[in-house]
Amino acid sequence: MGGFWFTEKQTENFGITMKINKTLHTEKTDFQQLDMAETEEWGNMLFLDGMVMTSQKDEFVYHEMVAHVPLFTHPNPENVLVVGGGDGGVIREVLKHPSVKKATLVEIDGKVIEYSKKYLPEIAGDLENERVEVIVGDGFMHIAESKNEYDVIMVDSTEPVGPAVNLFTKGFYSGISNALKEDGIFVAQSDNPWFKADLIKQVMSDVKEIFPITRLYTANIPTYPSGLWAFTLGSKKHDPLKVAEERFHEIDTKYYTKELHNAAFALPKFVKDLTE
Amino acid sequence: MGGFWFTEKQTENFGITMKINKTLHTEKTDFQQLDMAETEEWGNMLFLDGMVMTSQKDEFVYHEMVAHVPLFTHPNPENVLVVGGGDGGVIREVLKHPSVKKATLVEIDGKVIEYSKKYLPEIAGDLENERVEVIVGDGFMHIAESKNEYDVIMVDSTEPVGPAVNLFTKGFYSGISNALKEDGIFVAQSDNPWFKADLIKQVMSDVKEIFPITRLYTANIPTYPSGLWAFTLGSKKHDPLKVAEERFHEIDTKYYTKELHNAAFALPKFVKDLTE
Amino acid sequence: MGGFWFTEKQTENFGITMKINKTLHTEKTDFQQLDMAETEEWGNMLFLDGMVMTSQKDEFVYHEMVAHVPLFTHPNPENVLVVGGGDGGVIREVLKHPSVKKATLVEIDGKVIEYSKKYLPEIAGDLENERVEVIVGDGFMHIAESKNEYDVIMVDSTEPVGPAVNLFTKGFYSGISNALKEDGIFVAQSDNPWFKADLIKQVMSDVKEIFPITRLYTANIPTYPSGLWAFTLGSKKHDPLKVAEERFHEIDTKYYTKELHNAAFALPKFVKDLTE
Amino acid sequence: MGGFWFTEKQTENFGITMKINKTLHTEKTDFQQLDMAETEEWGNMLFLDGMVMTSQKDEFVYHEMVAHVPLFTHPNPENVLVVGGGDGGVIREVLKHPSVKKATLVEIDGKVIEYSKKYLPEIAGDLENERVEVIVGDGFMHIAESKNEYDVIMVDSTEPVGPAVNLFTKGFYSGISNALKEDGIFVAQSDNPWFKADLIKQVMSDVKEIFPITRLYTANIPTYPSGLWAFTLGSKKHDPLKVAEERFHEIDTKYYTKELHNAAFALPKFVKDLTE
Repeated sequence: MGGFWFTEKQTENFGITMKINKTLHTEKTDFQQLDMAETEEWGNMLFLDGMVMTSQKDEFVYHEMVAHVPLFTHPNPENVLVVGGGDGGVIREVLKHPSVKKATLVEIDGKVIEYSKKYLPEIAGDLENERVEVIVGDGFMHIAESKNEYDVIMVDSTEPVGPAVNLFTKGFYSGISNALKEDGIFVAQSDNPWFKADLIKQVMSDVKEIFPITRLYTANIPTYPSGLWAFTLGSKKHDPLKVAEERFHEIDTKYYTKELHNAAFALPKFVKDLTE
Repeated sequence: MGGFWFTEKQTENFGITMKINKTLHTEKTDFQQLDMAETEEWGNMLFLDGMVMTSQKDEFVYHEMVAHVPLFTHPNPENVLVVGGGDGGVIREVLKHPSVKKATLVEIDGKVIEYSKKYLPEIAGDLENERVEVIVGDGFMHIAESKNEYDVIMVDSTEPVGPAVNLFTKGFYSGISNALKEDGIFVAQSDNPWFKADLIKQVMSDVKEIFPITRLYTANIPTYPSGLWAFTLGSKKHDPLKVAEERFHEIDTKYYTKELHNAAFALPKFVKDLTE
Repeated sequence: MGGFWFTEKQTENFGITMKINKTLHTEKTDFQQLDMAETEEWGNMLFLDGMVMTSQKDEFVYHEMVAHVPLFTHPNPENVLVVGGGDGGVIREVLKHPSVKKATLVEIDGKVIEYSKKYLPEIAGDLENERVEVIVGDGFMHIAESKNEYDVIMVDSTEPVGPAVNLFTKGFYSGISNALKEDGIFVAQSDNPWFKADLIKQVMSDVKEIFPITRLYTANIPTYPSGLWAFTLGSKKHDPLKVAEERFHEIDTKYYTKELHNAAFALPKFVKDLTE
Repeated sequence: MGGFWFTEKQTENFGITMKINKTLHTEKTDFQQLDMAETEEWGNMLFLDGMVMTSQKDEFVYHEMVAHVPLFTHPNPENVLVVGGGDGGVIREVLKHPSVKKATLVEIDGKVIEYSKKYLPEIAGDLENERVEVIVGDGFMHIAESKNEYDVIMVDSTEPVGPAVNLFTKGFYSGISNALKEDGIFVAQSDNPWFKADLIKQVMSDVKEIFPITRLYTANIPTYPSGLWAFTLGSKKHDPLKVAEERFHEIDTKYYTKELHNAAFALPKFVKDLTE
């Protein structure tokens, strides 16, 4: 493996490693180490604090699965909030839903937005859309100040280290509940069941105390630890497993399908056990 | 990453890397490079020609998903053949089905069996079971000589390099069809859709010419390339998506569930496209 | 070793690896892969075809030892030629000798000069000196066309792969002899005795056929394979081991000293054996 | 770099990496992590706490240079002590001097001796010699209890971490002085001037306070950090730079020569500066 390689130690004793053609930008921002690089296998990639955030080649999985599961579950999502997600990928997917009148992005690190626009244009391009409001600020505070406002809230954060640590607390989920309308839905990325079983257990347990309907679903993301990513969904009224057939409309995706919407909730036995 | 690490280059430009406590056995057998090592993250692991075959921590996914999907699809599997699979993991799962009277393993490399028994006893232990016949020999030839004999055949091979290259040919699938009884079912591991899309396309296309019912399903295996592994199922009569509810019986698993049986066939859009 | 690292496989089975802050320039030039990167340990570094050429922190060893050994051996070097050496480090050292009236650099790859000036200014800065002529062209051809012209010729090439392959031939040494004046001296970097014993043996044997005085000397370069670098010196008249005491003048160096001039020719036994 | 590799991080940001065929022994002893492995490039290698101690291919440099420099400096070494050095390589070299009547080895970790005998027999074999006494014990204590006893003492320790930390103190050098006879000589390995300049400076300064003659010399060891290894020599009477020509006798070596004995003390300018 001569030449430039980037290695992410996903645990103390396991990692992935990828050939780098060049670094595109490296900076210690006010919040985290931001690296953008051109990889041979995955196209341009964004790393925060040494962890893979997104790549041009596999980004669609995460972004589609965060967005479409709650947006098809909700009968008429109009006002949507994305916390984190400065690369713009979730916003791009949100805008594929014609019912959405406004999508707000609250990203704490403006540099993530800046360099995603520059080096990941097909992901971040829709941040310029007229239906989108971009706020550079603290998502935790924004949630705390919002009441009965959003139909769907998506938490697209990093791991619970660095600036994202508050986003994995019961207080945050409670704030989200208040910020949602009476039939609102929220989704948060919840790491993976192979290396972070305790985290998933905790998040599910915390969210269950606040939302009447709580479900975990997964998707395969090859550049994320274990390749199996979990998402926690909390809903006040609508069940993602009881979406009316006619609710699904045509949508241009590479991962999400109507069938996969339901299948994503069928968990491997050892993951299901974490949720009970 | 000081100390001993094992890296598998899953592609020219991407790989996984894991901490090694010690090597347990390394040998150039008559067929391949065989390495057994104790890893910090995954327990003991078997590598063939530098590729991860199985690990104590995540082996259950592969072995359960190869075995239980066809065995629950078939209404009464009695005579089962495993081609390859010298580590014994598939056999262990096969024996969980009480209908199975005989399970035959045909592994070309006796060293795989020998060292799996020694270093992966909880995987290979059931190779000693009285219902099991172990043949050290060429699976391709064994198939060619079998007619109308098996209810279910499982192909648990390495990638189509080295000794397994014949196991990815139309001639082999045709032989399998002849070796199966009139309502027989076969399953083969088919690599992953991220790095080997063409292979999956080819296998699906080849199998479709021979079996009236052909389906692809997937499972998450963290130590395999991309974390998403594909399996091709060819069936003469029984459809894995139409298993009678009462057919499912209680079974002790860590990954497979009745719900996942069906969900595993709901493919990501880009994978589904490969099968059409 | 999370993050960006550059690894040079110095042999099939051994290498060095260093933390990269960022790549500064990467380009496939007409001649070779050129990479410039900022490393944490060695400062900015230049790599050609994946091999370390020079670093800000340890470059002085190579450049001083190529230049000062022959320049102090020659009683009055006025006209000096450097073949290769586009980073400018040898030229910088040559200019420290007041007797030198003209130093000519013939570098085949103009990009090496361009990016060394940009990212290694303290090495390449003297390429602008009025005593220096820079020619972007083929050193082999330049030598072939020069007769009785130079007092000292230094060959600062890459390994005998890529554009440098002609620079390790008897024909080239013969051309050098012709290009030198009647008491001229030549020096060439000759790789290392640990991994390239045969190469050293060959070069010494070839040079001995052409020059009456032939000697090998070494220096420690930590970023080069084995840390022990060899240089072959061929001389028509002046012996580097018989430099008159008064010939040595004060010179500003970090590695070379009068004592080391002589000591560098005292070879480890196994290296000495290669030269006999 | 697929397969098994061992990486030594020689600094936080730089390291060497080598292909491993297999591990031979790995153990957490009472004192340190001991690893023995078969490498493709260097033969069998011993690692302590993740650092290369010795390899079959390049061990001769270190062992010859520790032993022969002081043993040829002393006019008639009869009683020799080696502190550390459990692999036996220094002892092997010591025994090449016919004047030596007794060589004592004091190694704190008996496991180093045990596994060196097993896996590095050509290095450790002479530990069985009748002129040798092997003591498994604390070298610091052994020195403290010895008075006016040894002609030459060699300190062949690991870096000043773990069990070797006491061996880099002024108190230890003082003890050595007392343990030596009135014309005794001591040598200690002193790490490398590229990454550990401060350590070398400190050791030289400390030893100078105790020994009238103090000198630093170096050797090239490719598997040690920077490839340039330093040795500190303290002598009560005999100067290593004034060895009578007739003192040198024939000796079978691969690195050490009479010429190199003197040349090894000609230091690179930046190293010389550390000693003044």
